[in-house]
Amino acid sequence: MQLSVFQIDNYGPWTVTPEPRRETDLQSLQARLYSDLADFVGAADGYVFYDRFDNMVGVTNGIDHDQFELLQERVRNRYPFTISVGVGSGERPAAALDAASAALQETGSAQDAHRTEMIAGEPAASPGPVTIAHFDVVDVTGKYTDRASTAETSLALQRATLSLAEYMLDHHDSLSYFVGGDNIITVCPDLDEQAFRAAIDAVADQTGIDLQVGVGRGQRSHEAGYSAKEALEHCRETGSRIEANRQPVHTD
Amino acid sequence: MQLSVFQIDNYGPWTVTPEPRRETDLQSLQARLYSDLADFVGAADGYVFYDRFDNMVGVTNGIDHDQFELLQERVRNRYPFTISVGVGSGERPAAALDAASAALQETGSAQDAHRTEMIAGEPAASPGPVTIAHFDVVDVTGKYTDRASTAETSLALQRATLSLAEYMLDHHDSLSYFVGGDNIITVCPDLDEQAFRAAIDAVADQTGIDLQVGVGRGQRSHEAGYSAKEALEHCRETGSRIEANRQPVHTD
Amino acid sequence: MQLSVFQIDNYGPWTVTPEPRRETDLQSLQARLYSDLADFVGAADGYVFYDRFDNMVGVTNGIDHDQFELLQERVRNRYPFTISVGVGSGERPAAALDAASAALQETGSAQDAHRTEMIAGEPAASPGPVTIAHFDVVDVTGKYTDRASTAETSLALQRATLSLAEYMLDHHDSLSYFVGGDNIITVCPDLDEQAFRAAIDAVADQTGIDLQVGVGRGQRSHEAGYSAKEALEHCRETGSRIEANRQPVHTD
Amino acid sequence: MQLSVFQIDNYGPWTVTPEPRRETDLQSLQARLYSDLADFVGAADGYVFYDRFDNMVGVTNGIDHDQFELLQERVRNRYPFTISVGVGSGERPAAALDAASAALQETGSAQDAHRTEMIAGEPAASPGPVTIAHFDVVDVTGKYTDRASTAETSLALQRATLSLAEYMLDHHDSLSYFVGGDNIITVCPDLDEQAFRAAIDAVADQTGIDLQVGVGRGQRSHEAGYSAKEALEHCRETGSRIEANRQPVHTD
Repeated sequence: MQLSVFQIDNYGPWTVTPEPRRETDLQSLQARLYSDLADFVGAADGYVFYDRFDNMVGVTNGIDHDQFELLQERVRNRYPFTISVGVGSGERPAAALDAASAALQETGSAQDAHRTEMIAGEPAASPGPVTIAHFDVVDVTGKYTDRASTAETSLALQRATLSLAEYMLDHHDSLSYFVGGDNIITVCPDLDEQAFRAAIDAVADQTGIDLQVGVGRGQRSHEAGYSAKEALEHCRETGSRIEANRQPVHTD
Repeated sequence: MQLSVFQIDNYGPWTVTPEPRRETDLQSLQARLYSDLADFVGAADGYVFYDRFDNMVGVTNGIDHDQFELLQERVRNRYPFTISVGVGSGERPAAALDAASAALQETGSAQDAHRTEMIAGEPAASPGPVTIAHFDVVDVTGKYTDRASTAETSLALQRATLSLAEYMLDHHDSLSYFVGGDNIITVCPDLDEQAFRAAIDAVADQTGIDLQVGVGRGQRSHEAGYSAKEALEHCRETGSRIEANRQPVHTD
Repeated sequence: MQLSVFQIDNYGPWTVTPEPRRETDLQSLQARLYSDLADFVGAADGYVFYDRFDNMVGVTNGIDHDQFELLQERVRNRYPFTISVGVGSGERPAAALDAASAALQETGSAQDAHRTEMIAGEPAASPGPVTIAHFDVVDVTGKYTDRASTAETSLALQRATLSLAEYMLDHHDSLSYFVGGDNIITVCPDLDEQAFRAAIDAVADQTGIDLQVGVGRGQRSHEAGYSAKEALEHCRETGSRIEANRQPVHTD
Repeated sequence: MQLSVFQIDNYGPWTVTPEPRRETDLQSLQARLYSDLADFVGAADGYVFYDRFDNMVGVTNGIDHDQFELLQERVRNRYPFTISVGVGSGERPAAALDAASAALQETGSAQDAHRTEMIAGEPAASPGPVTIAHFDVVDVTGKYTDRASTAETSLALQRATLSLAEYMLDHHDSLSYFVGGDNIITVCPDLDEQAFRAAIDAVADQTGIDLQVGVGRGQRSHEAGYSAKEALEHCRETGSRIEANRQPVHTD
């Protein structure tokens, strides 16, 4: 699959020049940029995660050099800054993202005022299929939202996300992102049910939080992720903890 | 200070009715709602954190019942859903947020289709001052962004955020939120320099990540947070790890 | 009442530097800026019209110098350009707007790269009441939208808007703006029913298009405009062509 | 070329149910929808005009049925309403738009609560080239923005737009839209320089306003429009009133 890192050029210095900018303006700005990226990548059936907001991560199968340039043009024409893009590919998501960030790092520092609007690394002609695992917390409304304090619920979800992300990175070179509510999405290679069972057990052992997961696979993130969400609905209906929608995947 | 929780009414069911909605559309929608809340609360010199996106947390000193209604009207007129608000006050942020979420929980479940557009709890006439501590990672660009993999940097920041959030909640009833880049904002009661030093040490011990912090105080989050950001600039310039801008605070 | 003109600083040159920018990016950008202004002014119960997009017009009763600065800060922190504001007041809307644009023109040219973020003219402490007349086309869906071509309907509405705007400016120093659909809003001094009847007759004579109107009055545009919209609903229900909601107006 | 009308389903009734909605919320909402359409159509190198906001018009060469569905899905997932689309094609823009609106009208009324998310008419496999004429007012800043009142400038531009739109529709079956500032864009069949000269003369005779125009041609609106904007820059530099960039146009 093809992974991308989207980096705001020289953002840190901009946020404090000539003096620190109003925090809510920065928050609003970052959220809008993310919304625009989600729309752009989403129109190509990809996924994008806000990650650190100044560095966002996308699964961008099928998005080529011209389209990245179009996105850069759009940002330049609308925001007070520009963005650079690093691209990498491979069967293992974390390795692909490493390649993407390494390619970008080779073009210069994120805080070099002259390193702007780079596209580093090569988009893949045949990026290969994507596996999406969509996790959520079992009965989050009953156990947390309607009962626990907002602060405790928030920390519980951060613990679950971090625990899952560390486990999936270490064991399966996979990337996990909190996507709001009680939802965590993991971008994986092709894994079997046992691998997900072990991950859920590891999170429960470490944090006491029970996750369930739907898994889907496809040529694009949307196809894979939609399958995963349907599978997760089966978990909710049946009480199952792991459901996989293993559709046949055709080569591009 | 006055804390608020903003909750999308019956959001979970909506996201999967009649079938799961496209993930990037949901991501974009959540980011836009957050952007709108940041603008609204920011215009009153408050802060708002995206927290779980379907439950957002704000420091809302001075925002009264009529203004919350105006915000609810705006959301109703623009989004495919509505929001409810819980409000609580006190000198200790976590206690104030607990009061806010408890007040909201008493009105019914977040997934009750008939519990919509609540305003629970009472806005405070004299909410009292706010202390904002603005943390970031020492030399994040040199140590992480330009060197480490995007995945590792992301996990490092999640570990630092979680470690700090747990410490500040346990020891000082304070609330901590990642706000993008390498920035973490903590909403605190009035704490001395020693308290922040101990927090930084605890995070370094637990995660190996070095934080620095600027601290500010004021009648509104913006005033306090702006002071904190100026103080943090002093850290960056001088190599100091803790700088406090202790302005005189006038009663409202 | 208090009128304002919001002008993008040096916008024309920016749109073609270093080469012409993508038209849809400009369109999207202008719409977003207008949306942000509508939110900002709307939160203070004012109205804003997109006018020429690079010059927007607002009825801004009660918005003071500090709030205009906050708006300028927000634009500067979010857009690739800045804005200036001209302010004028009086009982006659066009005269107040003339004062606002004259004050702004005195600070320099809209295309002077060094004339940025001006606030020209003085916000009024007691701006006085606002009268809003909300017009629409009688049976637009039956006569136009569902029957005529889109191009013809569009021209019919432009003719009606222009005819009404010219009449109301010449006879009553009033300002008229198309606001979407078949709606035209006129900002007026205190006029009687006969004045509106003559305006409707003039438009019908000149263009053959039948308008109806609801009229409201209040200390803020929202109060006046909401009354006007309620009055217009009476027209729709009763077949009346002119309805005025003459609420008592209290001094600020 | 392929023209589309984008219509908000049952919008009028929604704006007043259960009572009239806040005007600035509606204005902001309409602007955001237009911004989203501009982004979506713009990513396919098309153009979209806000027209009446509840009915927007696009030049949508190359956008097929699946993409219109994706756009409808995006609107449904994000807004409190849905949209329908009418599509028509041909060498003459107004005829193509007529076909698009007639196809949509045949599916039912714009105010039928059960006629939602239609796609009427057939996207064209080979829509043929687009001619874009980009007009602006000669020395608008010196003659109007920096000198005349905002209200007078606004009316002057409305007169010029209406005069041009009527002329170009009557004589060349073309569609003209104000796009902000002093810019008017006309979507035309393939016309020679003499046709544009006559149009400019007609507007000057009728309104006293001097226009200049750049003309471009291409397989997509962006390609044609960008050429037109470059040509218009030549007018600004040379004092010429009409410049055409007649690039070779290849069949799709």
